[in-house]
Amino acid sequence: MDLPPQAPLPAIAPDLAQLAAGLFDALRAAHHDGVGITRETYGAGETAAMRRIAAVAEGFGLATAWDAGANLRITLPGTDPALPAAACGSHLDSVPQGGNFDGAAGVIAGLLALLAAQRQGPHRRTLILFVMRGEESAWYGRPYLGSSALFGAFDPAWLALPSLRDPGLTLGAAMRREGADIAVIAARQKLLDPASLSHFVELHIEQGPVMVARRVPVGLVSGIRGNHRHPDARCLGEAAHSGAVPRWLRRDAVLGAADLAMRLDGSWRALLEQGEDLVMTFGIFTTDPREHAMTRVPGELRFTLEYRSESERTLDDFLALAEAEAAAIARERRVLIELGPGVRTPPAVMDARLLALGGALCEAAAIPHEVLASGAGHDAAIFANAGVPSAMVFVRNEHGSHNPHEAMDMPDFLEGARVLAGLLLFGAEALGR
Amino acid sequence: MDLPPQAPLPAIAPDLAQLAAGLFDALRAAHHDGVGITRETYGAGETAAMRRIAAVAEGFGLATAWDAGANLRITLPGTDPALPAAACGSHLDSVPQGGNFDGAAGVIAGLLALLAAQRQGPHRRTLILFVMRGEESAWYGRPYLGSSALFGAFDPAWLALPSLRDPGLTLGAAMRREGADIAVIAARQKLLDPASLSHFVELHIEQGPVMVARRVPVGLVSGIRGNHRHPDARCLGEAAHSGAVPRWLRRDAVLGAADLAMRLDGSWRALLEQGEDLVMTFGIFTTDPREHAMTRVPGELRFTLEYRSESERTLDDFLALAEAEAAAIARERRVLIELGPGVRTPPAVMDARLLALGGALCEAAAIPHEVLASGAGHDAAIFANAGVPSAMVFVRNEHGSHNPHEAMDMPDFLEGARVLAGLLLFGAEALGR
Repeated sequence: MDLPPQAPLPAIAPDLAQLAAGLFDALRAAHHDGVGITRETYGAGETAAMRRIAAVAEGFGLATAWDAGANLRITLPGTDPALPAAACGSHLDSVPQGGNFDGAAGVIAGLLALLAAQRQGPHRRTLILFVMRGEESAWYGRPYLGSSALFGAFDPAWLALPSLRDPGLTLGAAMRREGADIAVIAARQKLLDPASLSHFVELHIEQGPVMVARRVPVGLVSGIRGNHRHPDARCLGEAAHSGAVPRWLRRDAVLGAADLAMRLDGSWRALLEQGEDLVMTFGIFTTDPREHAMTRVPGELRFTLEYRSESERTLDDFLALAEAEAAAIARERRVLIELGPGVRTPPAVMDARLLALGGALCEAAAIPHEVLASGAGHDAAIFANAGVPSAMVFVRNEHGSHNPHEAMDMPDFLEGARVLAGLLLFGAEALGR
Repeated sequence: MDLPPQAPLPAIAPDLAQLAAGLFDALRAAHHDGVGITRETYGAGETAAMRRIAAVAEGFGLATAWDAGANLRITLPGTDPALPAAACGSHLDSVPQGGNFDGAAGVIAGLLALLAAQRQGPHRRTLILFVMRGEESAWYGRPYLGSSALFGAFDPAWLALPSLRDPGLTLGAAMRREGADIAVIAARQKLLDPASLSHFVELHIEQGPVMVARRVPVGLVSGIRGNHRHPDARCLGEAAHSGAVPRWLRRDAVLGAADLAMRLDGSWRALLEQGEDLVMTFGIFTTDPREHAMTRVPGELRFTLEYRSESERTLDDFLALAEAEAAAIARERRVLIELGPGVRTPPAVMDARLLALGGALCEAAAIPHEVLASGAGHDAAIFANAGVPSAMVFVRNEHGSHNPHEAMDMPDFLEGARVLAGLLLFGAEALGR
């Protein structure tokens, strides 16, 4: 891709780098619970962290506003309000005892991008940083609450969801307490017109080990994997004496389920070799503890099966494959394999032009990078599925996320923030918007 | 095999068949606990059942005696006391809530054999029925207590074993209460010289489904399977996010263990096709319940592995195979498979000449029969491993054993009892003793 004339990437000035480091430190100090970082969805910690970011933004002369979902919007107004705004953002809640960077890195990188742009002098296009609520499902069992509210995709039934940690508290009550306008939310009013945005960019730490293994500080996300889950699958055979029943009279539930695992493992490998995006996991795989005995042929094995892909078609194909193999094993091994009801979350495709722009920006700035899929979900998926062309920048991070050991180095973060700023500033042109 | 001149098989006279049916009914009536049959090892029910058998035997003029292990010995004296005695026997304890035939069928069949022989007039060779104590491991965790005592194979340490149902009771105290001479047992004195017996025969219900499936009333046991057990095996991988970690960076404990199960399943099939005797069971196969999540690549799977064979060499070979496959999978899948310490119970070989005699007797009497291995252990294994040539007769039985649904038909039992009687009477000649 040819870079727009405004390139190269804006530098992150040393004082802004110091601001970012200070904000990470302040967030850690304010929300460390003794084990890790805890900022509850629609909770006091989340609100306090958002107010801290708002205060810094206001100190630099940026505009702040809170919407009916109690999301925070930080704006650097452009000189041509008729142009669709370029947006970035992420969230500030955390899982219980989580890490300091999941969510916060994207918010602070967005703040740096707006401040770096501000220093360049007036821009024609308005730039917005969305600081969103309730991205983590750990508190009410549902993720992307704040971003869903933006697009009228917040199901009013969720208002009645009880807190998983405090059964006396509903999501609706917590939202009202933290400043949301429940009547607006319950009416599914859109808080944001997707057409008012040229595009959306989110920076996030990588939650897997790929970038550490590949030694690249910056990742460009091709898509956010959707998934298909079978939470209640099982293999049913027949319990029998382990010594007295010969092979030909057995219906062994362990061997039936292990056969399925191996067949799907082989298909997984073959699909990867064909260039498909796929991960597959049997998270739970267990004989019945109530009948556990070394000398009994197991009559039942319960398991979960989850597969994720950037491609909905690959999910469809893998489901068909799993069903066919289950039927074949049933015939061959005289067991019954029930995959049970499946739950589908569709993938979100990142915009190919923004992805190409990200690659060109990294090339021009000599930043080692790699294109990869996001295995976990993000607010960017909500923007993408609402029709806003979207991109994601990953920053190298060790030990995964959702734990106190998240480890992102500041030099990597600043490279990621530069790429985010570049995508924010030049993305609309790449899209012709 | 040429049958000895005394053949064909003695008939079981109608009054003896009625005696047997009456004894089964009486045992059921006396020891039904509301769910199934319960006669505790070295318990009052076991003793009462033994006394009932002794009383019937004495009523027919047979001699009875109790040994230092509180086992009962019923004797039909022969005219030539210098000849080694022909013996049969089984046990009268049951598992808690067990069935009416496991053990008792062998004792009652032995009684019929002695009574049928008695009616034939004087025999040169003494015939003995051993009614043994404590065959079931359900009460003190150790099987074959009474038969082990016969041959000085009772480990004195077992005297201190606590009852699994009554922690205040030790095996030693229960044995003393039911009439055993603990000093003799503790000194490991042999209560029986193996050389004093020509051979030993035990009738038992089949505990597997083979004979029902094959439609044969009588089974001839080629050997009692030994086993090799790995009670604490596990596959260790690395827990990881199910969406964010690609295949090449995973160490999936479920796939590692499933791979082992499938490889050993393939080897099992191949060994059967080569004519080896083998059964293999993963009785417990479970991811860690404390870490159960659909969206986590499992870091650990715990399992048990047991394999049984009539051949010690096959057990050795399969152990080597399991270790080799575990090492290969570790290399290929970057997991660690620990089979853990193995526990070996050696097989017991039934005497081939007695097995051939059993086949010839069935042929001559047109009794459908089949040679099969015993997957469960029996007192006959103790006799065989003490050097007494031994044989076992199985009787068709539905629903397995150790449960109230044991289902043996009387016509099948009477056919089995005829074969037992034939082996008892003609076995010594077949062996040249």
